[in-house]
Amino acid sequence: MPVFTEHAAASRELRVLPSFAPPLPRLTSTTPQTDKYEVLIVGAGPAGLMMELLLARYGLSDDSLLCIDAKSTTLKSGQADGVQPRTLETLKSLGLADEILCEGCQMWQVAFWNPSEDKEKIIERTSIIPDVAAPSRYPFEVTIHQGRIERILETDLLRYSKRGVQRNTKLLDVRMDEDGDAEYPVVAEIETDGQTRTVRSKFLIGADGAHSVVRRKMGLKLEGESSDHIWGVVDLVVDTDFPDIRRRCAIHSPAGSVMVIPRERIATGEYLTRLYVQVPGDVAHGDDLDLASGTGTPVVDARARRSQVTEKTIFDNAAAAFAPYYIRPKSDGAVDWWAAYQIGQRVTDRFSVKDSRGINRVFIAGDACHTHSPKAGQGMNVSMMDSYNLAWKLAYFINGLTPDGPNDILDTYHQERHTIAQQLIEFDKAFSSMFSGKIGPAEDGVDGLTHDEFMEVFRRGNGFTSGCGVEYPENMTVDRSSTENPIRGTDFLSGILYPGRRLLNVRLVRHADGYRRDIQDDFTSTGRFRILCLTSSDLLDPTGISAQALKALSQTIARFPASLLEQVVVHPRLPRDFMWNDIPREVKQHSEMSFYSGYEMDDVYGIYGVDPEKGALAIVRPDGYIGVIASLADISRADRYLETLIRTVQVDL
Amino acid sequence: MPVFTEHAAASRELRVLPSFAPPLPRLTSTTPQTDKYEVLIVGAGPAGLMMELLLARYGLSDDSLLCIDAKSTTLKSGQADGVQPRTLETLKSLGLADEILCEGCQMWQVAFWNPSEDKEKIIERTSIIPDVAAPSRYPFEVTIHQGRIERILETDLLRYSKRGVQRNTKLLDVRMDEDGDAEYPVVAEIETDGQTRTVRSKFLIGADGAHSVVRRKMGLKLEGESSDHIWGVVDLVVDTDFPDIRRRCAIHSPAGSVMVIPRERIATGEYLTRLYVQVPGDVAHGDDLDLASGTGTPVVDARARRSQVTEKTIFDNAAAAFAPYYIRPKSDGAVDWWAAYQIGQRVTDRFSVKDSRGINRVFIAGDACHTHSPKAGQGMNVSMMDSYNLAWKLAYFINGLTPDGPNDILDTYHQERHTIAQQLIEFDKAFSSMFSGKIGPAEDGVDGLTHDEFMEVFRRGNGFTSGCGVEYPENMTVDRSSTENPIRGTDFLSGILYPGRRLLNVRLVRHADGYRRDIQDDFTSTGRFRILCLTSSDLLDPTGISAQALKALSQTIARFPASLLEQVVVHPRLPRDFMWNDIPREVKQHSEMSFYSGYEMDDVYGIYGVDPEKGALAIVRPDGYIGVIASLADISRADRYLETLIRTVQVDL
Repeated sequence: MPVFTEHAAASRELRVLPSFAPPLPRLTSTTPQTDKYEVLIVGAGPAGLMMELLLARYGLSDDSLLCIDAKSTTLKSGQADGVQPRTLETLKSLGLADEILCEGCQMWQVAFWNPSEDKEKIIERTSIIPDVAAPSRYPFEVTIHQGRIERILETDLLRYSKRGVQRNTKLLDVRMDEDGDAEYPVVAEIETDGQTRTVRSKFLIGADGAHSVVRRKMGLKLEGESSDHIWGVVDLVVDTDFPDIRRRCAIHSPAGSVMVIPRERIATGEYLTRLYVQVPGDVAHGDDLDLASGTGTPVVDARARRSQVTEKTIFDNAAAAFAPYYIRPKSDGAVDWWAAYQIGQRVTDRFSVKDSRGINRVFIAGDACHTHSPKAGQGMNVSMMDSYNLAWKLAYFINGLTPDGPNDILDTYHQERHTIAQQLIEFDKAFSSMFSGKIGPAEDGVDGLTHDEFMEVFRRGNGFTSGCGVEYPENMTVDRSSTENPIRGTDFLSGILYPGRRLLNVRLVRHADGYRRDIQDDFTSTGRFRILCLTSSDLLDPTGISAQALKALSQTIARFPASLLEQVVVHPRLPRDFMWNDIPREVKQHSEMSFYSGYEMDDVYGIYGVDPEKGALAIVRPDGYIGVIASLADISRADRYLETLIRTVQVDL
Repeated sequence: MPVFTEHAAASRELRVLPSFAPPLPRLTSTTPQTDKYEVLIVGAGPAGLMMELLLARYGLSDDSLLCIDAKSTTLKSGQADGVQPRTLETLKSLGLADEILCEGCQMWQVAFWNPSEDKEKIIERTSIIPDVAAPSRYPFEVTIHQGRIERILETDLLRYSKRGVQRNTKLLDVRMDEDGDAEYPVVAEIETDGQTRTVRSKFLIGADGAHSVVRRKMGLKLEGESSDHIWGVVDLVVDTDFPDIRRRCAIHSPAGSVMVIPRERIATGEYLTRLYVQVPGDVAHGDDLDLASGTGTPVVDARARRSQVTEKTIFDNAAAAFAPYYIRPKSDGAVDWWAAYQIGQRVTDRFSVKDSRGINRVFIAGDACHTHSPKAGQGMNVSMMDSYNLAWKLAYFINGLTPDGPNDILDTYHQERHTIAQQLIEFDKAFSSMFSGKIGPAEDGVDGLTHDEFMEVFRRGNGFTSGCGVEYPENMTVDRSSTENPIRGTDFLSGILYPGRRLLNVRLVRHADGYRRDIQDDFTSTGRFRILCLTSSDLLDPTGISAQALKALSQTIARFPASLLEQVVVHPRLPRDFMWNDIPREVKQHSEMSFYSGYEMDDVYGIYGVDPEKGALAIVRPDGYIGVIASLADISRADRYLETLIRTVQVDL
């Protein structure tokens, strides 16, 4: 178009950049000091990177935050490959899901293969079911190289941090020394390229893996044991006539068990497959590597058996289990990676260590907390979610956003994540041992396992393994003490609101612009608490319960630091069409772009268990888990919950 | 998991990187030479960047490809903001849609405001309709800063090109000189920081905007004229009680016309709004800036009127049109950009220039080809789609993938895009003049415009403005000469297959893994032709028409350079469940990961107009437009179409 007069503001040109997450408000001050950091993170795997990224996005600068890793590059990393639905939701809330969704392998189905009664067929497909049964925004798992997840996290980190991860740096020792400096009581000796230095920090996160130095130095105990089964795992491009090679498969054949995990497409245009292959025979119970002490001394008998596992034995066992179908590497070089392992399930007894004043100062996260078998695809997920749970609590504490008082929000990290780690181990034990077992009648004194029993463990586990069924126990951030619960229903996995559960995604239509939108996109991971107000059908009545609640909530929002509370409002079907001036002005004031009809797409009230005649209110934590539920008549309940967690501010009235 | 034996291939570590598009095969050779390039692109706006990115992804290296731009940075750029549904599909096919979809403003609805019969109300909302009526994968427009689109394209470009755009470099002159070097006949004088040098190229693309030097130097003519209406445009954060400020609005008030374009959220957390405001009074016809000659001399009267347009006049006119609602900048600095312009509609007579052998050597794309009003949000889209149309044709020609012969695939660029440019101008004239007119009865001898008439222009235009209704005329890449058309129906906009139209997205379920998938994700912009085979319901019959067609297509695929033809197979509901070994082996051989059921999600056969009893076949061009349609009994028709466009190779049988 021919423009003849033009004027532009200087700020306009900044709009070409990707958006940045808004930092959290900060009420405390801090001064950069040499070799002192507010947070020191040890280890830059999925747990450590997620922790650093979140803290950087919440506003901690390179002066305040240091993450070290012993490795020299991001490339050499673990071999986890499964990304669960809840993890995908979390990555989406950080704007980091697209590459994973588009270029990972979406795993939609699982097929069960069992011995056939027809001896010529040997095995047959018993059923195909959805891989993810729990309702979720992303009803599938994704498999993708762990290193790629790490690269995605680190690329985003470098938008917020100039330093990123300080590599080639290992932790030698860590101890608590309050006498030297009570504000920075954690003392770490670290070594970079042979140079040792001492670094003090307010908090230290040990995300340093299964052999965690932090765990050992802080005297935390990894409890549990190895099972007696040996497995081989191999990633490769296969040539096979097995019909379900692109589905996740649980194959119980007379010759042994195999799990098939389809994986992502690679640069050649071909697709990877991962096989977990049972290596027959058992190692005696207790013959496990001593991971807790890190000495790794196996008992001789077990070592001998393990040393016999080679690429060839893994393939031979796989080929036997696939019979009568053939399976082989597609070409020379088609084998990408292989390893042998013994299943072990362990949990560390405590996830944090306090100073003498009772403040949690050292935390462990990820594999440092829990080890388990890889077959349910949990490792990378539980690790990242450990950090996702801790990061906002730590940022609130550091930024002075939590009130003074006897309660410590940092206690809730162990309370919540240790519970999850124990559930993980219990599920993994059940799943692994059934998977290692044989389907069919009892034989040689060993109990047989029916297909139905196996399916039942798989089904029950799905809420947990998808991450969507995680339920945190009651604690100061999860308040279930309601006397008057406005929510009907108990099927929390399907969306019924419940403190300690994540807010299920629903689709709704925005009033302001007709945008058909996912509610989770208003619950992004910017560290804010959200008020989710589901109004009653009296919204158009200026003296109704909804109008009163919205007015009271407006005062609630004003009582806490600016921007820390966001409000999302949903309305049920109303008696007539309306415009902004027909509803309480507080809706437009606080929620112009987060005000929705809750019936045009999904039946939001039905899914969340809310009576449209009565409405309801939920406070959602920064990590998307519901903190408390209240009726619209009882806003003070929400106030009390928030006051426990967030410092109030002076309000100019 | 405790791993005790491990082996990894070296290539494994590359898998952490984002995927790269596979380059096109190349049958010709080329040697890097100083100051000689296969393609020189002038201008790095949306058209130039899209061209460079596509050619780089198709495999042209920095030795072969040079893009220059006179500006020193990507930041200063145009003010277009609309991204249309078809453009979104195209960006998605390049893996570049996510940021735009998530951080742009999704515009779902348009509201029409007209004079009210109630004098106190002054204006009232007549209706709200969906902004995009055409079926599309993305049923909305997105508004976002043009500079951001450019930054996204350039970021991706830098994965494929080390140099990226060579900035601070302007084109001084361009001419054809076959005598000097017939292989590199295009001679360009370019200047970088005061240094002049001569560059030869095989092909040159003038993507250098409305004042194109390429166009002028090559003697191409911009035809058309300016209208008599003056408009102001302003981007700002508004404070208003107008209820539809977050919807696209066409406001026809007694005091004048305003168009409201909601825009993206900015760093402050606030949302931008764009207003197009009519400035009352007309400039005499023909009083336009002489863009063609570039001298820009306006007639005195028009200049005087234009100079009166200021930020204040724009706001005063806007405020008057919004009455009785108030509208004002939210705060100091809320005005982001403002400009005044006069609508002009022009098209260049020819989009390319041939050498003496009849080979097209110089092309123009984008604003160099067409200028028009900004209100339909077309500029950036048509410009990028010009390049999207030309790039694969040019790459095929350069790589020697086109057969020798009298036909020149490069002719089709002008044939197709000039047609679209003319349609654009015609729509824009109708839309702009109706928008500039008043709604209501005839007055002072000027014909009145009814709301229904306006809506009709808006509706009819939607297929075109969304980009989804684009229909290329018949040419060597669009073959409609079918004697036996297997397609029923004529509602091409709604998906009925038709040569020259883009393949509408449908959702289907993949056989191999149950992935619920968008068909367009198998039609990515990697420069490949695709065979879309919709089998008939006799697929399970080894001697049926489907089996015969698939066998013949397998031979077709082998006759062209490896990887250049991809096959997507869809089946209708079949008489029974099946596994791979129940269907022709060619399906798994060529389409293991692109074989779908076409009835479990969308009714693919119904949408595409294909009889499930008979099936059908379409060849889809690399840019997603259908080239030819054939019945399953007539594969030779597809063969003939492909042979016209692609060189065949020796087949070892």
